[in-house]
Amino acid sequence: MGKVIADQSISLDGLSAGPNVRVGNPLGDGGQRLHEWMYRDGDGTNRGAEVRDELFRTSGAVVMGRRMFDLGVEPWGNNPPFHMPVFVVTHDASDPLAKEGGTTYTFVTGGIESALARAKAAAGDKDVAVLGGANTIRQFIAAGLLDELRIHLAHVLLGDGTRLFDHLSPEQVNLESTRVVDAPGATHLTFRILR
Amino acid sequence: MGKVIADQSISLDGLSAGPNVRVGNPLGDGGQRLHEWMYRDGDGTNRGAEVRDELFRTSGAVVMGRRMFDLGVEPWGNNPPFHMPVFVVTHDASDPLAKEGGTTYTFVTGGIESALARAKAAAGDKDVAVLGGANTIRQFIAAGLLDELRIHLAHVLLGDGTRLFDHLSPEQVNLESTRVVDAPGATHLTFRILR
Repeated sequence: MGKVIADQSISLDGLSAGPNVRVGNPLGDGGQRLHEWMYRDGDGTNRGAEVRDELFRTSGAVVMGRRMFDLGVEPWGNNPPFHMPVFVVTHDASDPLAKEGGTTYTFVTGGIESALARAKAAAGDKDVAVLGGANTIRQFIAAGLLDELRIHLAHVLLGDGTRLFDHLSPEQVNLESTRVVDAPGATHLTFRILR
Repeated sequence: MGKVIADQSISLDGLSAGPNVRVGNPLGDGGQRLHEWMYRDGDGTNRGAEVRDELFRTSGAVVMGRRMFDLGVEPWGNNPPFHMPVFVVTHDASDPLAKEGGTTYTFVTGGIESALARAKAAAGDKDVAVLGGANTIRQFIAAGLLDELRIHLAHVLLGDGTRLFDHLSPEQVNLESTRVVDAPGATHLTFRILR
C-alpha cells in the first residue's frame, strides 16, 4: 500500500501562488519564481530536478482540485507531465479526458474521499500524489487523509497571494520532519503527518 | 568588521508570534512552540542549543525594537541572556539600564541607522545581532542594512499572529541560501542578503 503525499512549492512567506491567479496566469503574479528551483543546476548536479522527478517515479495516480485543473489543462497540453491517471475533485460531472503519454483526467464528484479511493485503486502499490491546489491540500490535511507533506520552500518572497496553510487550525497538523534536502533556490522539506 | 545578522524563529506558515501578543504573553498564543526547538535533544546531540548559542558567541552587540524590549524585559530578568550591550530603538529617551552579567540596555531615539551605528561601535570586530521584533527586522531589510538573515523554521503551524515578512515588497529581498541545518523540531536556514 502506497502513501498519500501532498506536494507543494511555497515561498518563505508561506504563499503557494502570487496574487491575480486566473487562466493564463496559473501561478499568479510572480508565482513562476516558486518553481525556478526545478530548473537550476547546482555544482554539476541538478538536485532540484531529482526532487521534482522523485514523486512522479513513486506515484501511480494524482489527485487535484478542479481549479488547479482549469488553470493547468491548457499549459500542460496534449502530453501532460503526469503520465498516469489524474483524478479531479469537482462538482460538475464530465466524461474522462484521455491525453497522450498515459495521462487521463477523470472527474470525481463525490468529494476528496471518493477521489482518493479512485486514485488508490488506480495506483495499486504506488503512492498517490495530491498536487493541489492549496484548498485541496488543506481539505486533505483537515480530513486526516495525508501520510506525508512535501514542501519545496523556495528562497523567495511573494508578498501576497494564496497562503497554503490558511484556515487550518494548528491542532490539525502535527508534523515530524523526516528529510531535508538543500538545493539551489529551494530547501525541500518532507514531513510525516502524525495522527 | 562583523556582519549585521537578523535572527528569527518562524512557523511553517510564516508567523514570528501567535495572536494576542502583550506583556505577560510575549510570544502570543501558542507562540512558545516557535522556540521549543531550542530545548529538544537529538540523538545524543543538541543541535538546537548549538544553533541558539552560535549567534551570541559571534556577536558583540544586540539591536531590538522597543516593543520587544517592553515584552521581554520582565521575563529576561536581572541577568538577561544577552551578556552584551543591547541597543533599543525607541521614540522615548531614557537612561541606560544596566543588568547583571554584562547586559546594558541603551535607548536610542535616532531610528535604526543610529541604533546600528551605536551597536557596531560597541561590537568592534564582532557581529551585530538584530533580534526583532518582526517590525524592526523588516525595517532593517527595507533599509538594506542587513548582511544575513537567519530563519529558524519551526515545524509547527500557528494559524494566526505576526507575519515576519508582511509589508515587504518582494523586490527588496534577494536571498542566497548559504547554510541549512536540520535539527529536531526546526530547520535552520541562513541567507546572505544580496544587494
